[in-house]
Amino acid sequence: MGLNRSTIGALVSELAGLGAVHEHRPEADPSRPATAGRPSLRVVPAADRVQVLAADIAVDRIVVALIGLGGTVVTRRRRRRTIGPASSGPAQVLAVLGEMFDAVLADRDPGVEVVGIGVAVPGVVRSRDGLVRFAPNLGWVDVPLGEMLRDRFGHLPSRVGNDADLGLLAEHRRGAARGIDDVVFLAGDVGVGGGMVLGGRPLIGAGGYAGELGHMMIRPDGRRCRCGAHGCWETEIGLPAVLRALGLPEDTGSEGLSEALARVEPGSTVLDDVGRHLGLGMASIVNLVNPRLFIVGGLLREVYPLIEDVARSALAEAALVAPGEQVRIDVPLLGGDASLVGASELAWSDLLADPTAVLGAGTAPGRGTVPRRRA
Amino acid sequence: MGLNRSTIGALVSELAGLGAVHEHRPEADPSRPATAGRPSLRVVPAADRVQVLAADIAVDRIVVALIGLGGTVVTRRRRRRTIGPASSGPAQVLAVLGEMFDAVLADRDPGVEVVGIGVAVPGVVRSRDGLVRFAPNLGWVDVPLGEMLRDRFGHLPSRVGNDADLGLLAEHRRGAARGIDDVVFLAGDVGVGGGMVLGGRPLIGAGGYAGELGHMMIRPDGRRCRCGAHGCWETEIGLPAVLRALGLPEDTGSEGLSEALARVEPGSTVLDDVGRHLGLGMASIVNLVNPRLFIVGGLLREVYPLIEDVARSALAEAALVAPGEQVRIDVPLLGGDASLVGASELAWSDLLADPTAVLGAGTAPGRGTVPRRRA
Repeated sequence: MGLNRSTIGALVSELAGLGAVHEHRPEADPSRPATAGRPSLRVVPAADRVQVLAADIAVDRIVVALIGLGGTVVTRRRRRRTIGPASSGPAQVLAVLGEMFDAVLADRDPGVEVVGIGVAVPGVVRSRDGLVRFAPNLGWVDVPLGEMLRDRFGHLPSRVGNDADLGLLAEHRRGAARGIDDVVFLAGDVGVGGGMVLGGRPLIGAGGYAGELGHMMIRPDGRRCRCGAHGCWETEIGLPAVLRALGLPEDTGSEGLSEALARVEPGSTVLDDVGRHLGLGMASIVNLVNPRLFIVGGLLREVYPLIEDVARSALAEAALVAPGEQVRIDVPLLGGDASLVGASELAWSDLLADPTAVLGAGTAPGRGTVPRRRA
Repeated sequence: MGLNRSTIGALVSELAGLGAVHEHRPEADPSRPATAGRPSLRVVPAADRVQVLAADIAVDRIVVALIGLGGTVVTRRRRRRTIGPASSGPAQVLAVLGEMFDAVLADRDPGVEVVGIGVAVPGVVRSRDGLVRFAPNLGWVDVPLGEMLRDRFGHLPSRVGNDADLGLLAEHRRGAARGIDDVVFLAGDVGVGGGMVLGGRPLIGAGGYAGELGHMMIRPDGRRCRCGAHGCWETEIGLPAVLRALGLPEDTGSEGLSEALARVEPGSTVLDDVGRHLGLGMASIVNLVNPRLFIVGGLLREVYPLIEDVARSALAEAALVAPGEQVRIDVPLLGGDASLVGASELAWSDLLADPTAVLGAGTAPGRGTVPRRRA
């Protein structure tokens, strides 16, 4: 970084004073020769001391967690929601979120400082201010969630992102897509979203709306989608389609889904249609963007083992040979936590950009040795 | 560039000696005050002196041209091809290409130096060596076109690219997409290809195969595509589908198409189905990548004015509101020359990377003032 030893020393002391890092003496390494002089201290992030609040607002559940640096989930709470407008209004959701955040905060270890909030939403989000432009499966249009979070939790910086984009972010940093430059992440829940990393960079689009995989048309004569169009991929592989195929009511929710999937007989064909449409849609995307890895995430990851063969054969049938040969299919390494961990990554961004402003805001001023900047 | 005046002088003299640039005294500008000292010479590329050979191999025609710096088409030849394996074999195509290149070269002005070859092909191309992996509408699989060009025209550096990628490159540098960061280029001919610029960079994919827009599935119960799958977008909006809708035989070719389009009555609905499928497919892509501009290129650009209304209403119906609001639809500013001009851009790349090696190869050595490097 081109900084001299004493500047680094001053900066590290300040961060240590704020509790962001620990300094400790490295253990002697018998495989290396002893070096002359005083050994440098090792500086590691204080993952136990600084944490963020993360939430994943899904259609049928809200999950809230305290997460440490590195993506470690420290405490978590989960609440089932009945699907429907009565419980999906932004005010109701924010009230529930507030209670859950309070409960998680009350559980935290003494001495832990919470430095930010990140929220994942199943909808199109304007990242600048957290405006939810459109979340069809919550029934939200232009909901200023970022502003509402700032009103309610003003002392903490908060950020809102699309659940699939955040799932992809987490898988790309810490999961199945680490080090891979061309990745498609499918977030299959009640709604089906997605995100892509192409050429090593997240695909954003002209206005930040890229990656709505669930609204690729797959069947012109198909069912009407909640977005208003007909035959969107979501209508064939979303949770309601899976539940219909299993003979269950569409409001069954994720626990009911898991139980029903466990009861599916080996060799059963009830889910073949879902598998076939999964594979056909993947083929279209493979032909369009030629990814190295396709991650089947969201609740669909639980269905995937039962439909893998059908999906793979539909994919092989419909994809061009060259890009078809190059794609690997996987489920998220972070499982159902991908969007939640992604929300925490978003929550860390302010701290990482300016540790002293964020940590300083919650602690006594003037402890550092370098003049403090405020954001 | 951090070079001093005398180094720049030496480099410019060398380029001028090779005929790549002209130096001339700028005219006095009466709106600006006269400055002290000798005015700097103005250096401009010698567009008239150095040219490249470009070819666009389409399914039913081959177009060959001499093109100057800046994309100016100097001479052009066009040959109609009957569609079918008898005339599509790589050896036959290369023989025709050779004759056409010879004819164009014979026409060139005295003193013109030709410095490279660029060829656009309607197929999946490995850019490194010009291997055509798959060109279903030519019936080619793993044809080493780059190698064949080097055998036949060994004295000139040659490059092969996908026609749609090259059309997009030309439109992005010199056409409708100048300065736009998120662009989809649809190349609708007998086959339907495409290319995308996303976040300001061409989309490549894991192996260079991205952008096969024509093989996005749009109708699971649709016709069998030449790629082997069913219901690819190409089967609904490719030239054969347009010709069928017009009641013409599928081997009509592009002149016949233009004549037939001119005879379509205003208000006729014969092309509505093509227009509807165009709009539905665009909607899927708009939802996936959120482009600012969608260019309808290839022969489809001639059909587009007749189907614009139907296509736009299908797009509006099937695209999500936010990305749907942001996309503009246009036809290529370079018209039918987009892929040809793109092929010339490819042909310039060696010259631009190392002018002395390329220009030196065809002229007397030792003329420059700076030691010559060879590629």
